[in-house]
Amino acid sequence: MYAALDIGGTKIAGALIDEEGSVIRRAELPTPAGESTARMAGTVDAVIDELAAHPAWGTVSGLGIASAGPVDTAAGTVSPVNIPSWRAFPLVDSVRAHPMLFDGIEPVLLGDAVAVAAAEHWLGAARGLDNALCMVVSTGVGGGFVLNGRLHPGPSGNAGHIGHISVDLDGPPCACGARGCVEGYASGTAIARHAVQSGWRPPAGAEATAAAVAAAARAGDERALASYDRSAKALAAAIAGSATLLEIEVCVIGGGVAQAGDVLFSPLRRHLRAFAALGFTRGLEVRPAALARDAGLVGAAAAARLQAHAAGAPAVTG
Amino acid sequence: MYAALDIGGTKIAGALIDEEGSVIRRAELPTPAGESTARMAGTVDAVIDELAAHPAWGTVSGLGIASAGPVDTAAGTVSPVNIPSWRAFPLVDSVRAHPMLFDGIEPVLLGDAVAVAAAEHWLGAARGLDNALCMVVSTGVGGGFVLNGRLHPGPSGNAGHIGHISVDLDGPPCACGARGCVEGYASGTAIARHAVQSGWRPPAGAEATAAAVAAAARAGDERALASYDRSAKALAAAIAGSATLLEIEVCVIGGGVAQAGDVLFSPLRRHLRAFAALGFTRGLEVRPAALARDAGLVGAAAAARLQAHAAGAPAVTG
Repeated sequence: MYAALDIGGTKIAGALIDEEGSVIRRAELPTPAGESTARMAGTVDAVIDELAAHPAWGTVSGLGIASAGPVDTAAGTVSPVNIPSWRAFPLVDSVRAHPMLFDGIEPVLLGDAVAVAAAEHWLGAARGLDNALCMVVSTGVGGGFVLNGRLHPGPSGNAGHIGHISVDLDGPPCACGARGCVEGYASGTAIARHAVQSGWRPPAGAEATAAAVAAAARAGDERALASYDRSAKALAAAIAGSATLLEIEVCVIGGGVAQAGDVLFSPLRRHLRAFAALGFTRGLEVRPAALARDAGLVGAAAAARLQAHAAGAPAVTG
Repeated sequence: MYAALDIGGTKIAGALIDEEGSVIRRAELPTPAGESTARMAGTVDAVIDELAAHPAWGTVSGLGIASAGPVDTAAGTVSPVNIPSWRAFPLVDSVRAHPMLFDGIEPVLLGDAVAVAAAEHWLGAARGLDNALCMVVSTGVGGGFVLNGRLHPGPSGNAGHIGHISVDLDGPPCACGARGCVEGYASGTAIARHAVQSGWRPPAGAEATAAAVAAAARAGDERALASYDRSAKALAAAIAGSATLLEIEVCVIGGGVAQAGDVLFSPLRRHLRAFAALGFTRGLEVRPAALARDAGLVGAAAAARLQAHAAGAPAVTG
């Protein structure tokens, strides 16, 4: 049994997850994002309390924490953009100090997009693959790599930040400081903005979201189609670049924007044929993510499981 | 002692290299690039013959082969662009069949840019680093990665092809089929072409090479400086992208274009400060390569050495 936490700007979720990846118990509280460091940490503790009240807690042999980034896994700290009171907050120490945590359980911290990659590799669309990129295309664009059959979080847990690689060296400035970042073309926000700038308007009373643009694209609206095509082209350049650098075989795409289905995936596959041009990249495949809501929790459990297996540790009973 | 071969479009080089990386014996023949498969293979055999005539051959415990690409290390074959008669040529089998090769020595094949990365990691500017990109910027642009302290050639040996990632999704078409590839901005050929297109001319009697453009840039020619700036900007976007994807700490740059020194490295460092904008990439450093002429051979020996050490094999004596 593994315990998992998923720290986001909206909610703090927890779960007990078994060796097969099934969620046995789930707990969730709203993130008190604007409040104090201590109040935030108290909410994480309260989620752990809920999990610890379940009889299966006694068989937990590892605990994983997925967190909104930036993270520093080497230091065990997190600085989530949407949780202003946590800057270099020592989340691993804080969780380790919870009175219900057994001796010998060392919490494993990973970034939320890397957690999604861990989940898709364990149980989802990247299962059985040795070299894969898993992306989350939503309000932002993130990702994580599996290389040589193993998760590749990088020394500080931030590898896979594909939303902030440049696909246009003279492109528009990005909030990160660079120019022409993938996120500025491919995120849901960018898709909606591009459509509105080209004259598209949502139906009366509806908001100008990427989902509304997708609905318009499905109905044949040229401006909506062009906006998804622009997103797909930027994703294709970045995904092909990753395959050219790393020989990844498959790119798994989840997140809200991936819900557009063929509206996104058709132009994406077409642009990929152009950008993934070298022989060794031509087999590159894109697939929709297989796991949905609980991917972060399942990924956190996957990381805890890998650590427990690597340590050869038997289940610690309470 | 390790034997090393370096197969290029101009020459076929070989060396005996000791445990410290010193070249004990060197052999070299011109590549009969336009001739038959068998004549090519015979030239490789002749280079091995020369090495085998040295008394130290008897202590060789591994053999590495660096080859111009594309390579397929899984299949043991090579298809060098500039050697038309070799297409999916079984180079590993051909070398293994040499009568002077001891039983139990399994030749290790790697691409030439990956070999340079192996050499720089063993003895050069990436020594002691766990996460590095090593690039060769010359007529073409190639590279190789060290990740988690180990060479990362990818399943078929082609990882690191940084010359063919796009830094401009709407950029000029590349021979590879994609658009806006780094090589089209950053190679020596591209630097010279850009300078000529902007009105620069080489001194009377001299050729319009990247080295001539560098000399003009050093003398203050604005068009020459702009051409190197353009190359540096494309390299910066690609190097920063690699650091953002993989958390590399250092990028080592060798090859003819790197000989321009500050003419290249000054604008490169300036553009990198803009493109490597996320916190975890800000420490990214660029360094000139430390190894020159023999980097391919030293890298081939490094790969042979890693294989011999991994196998725990004692030196096979003749």
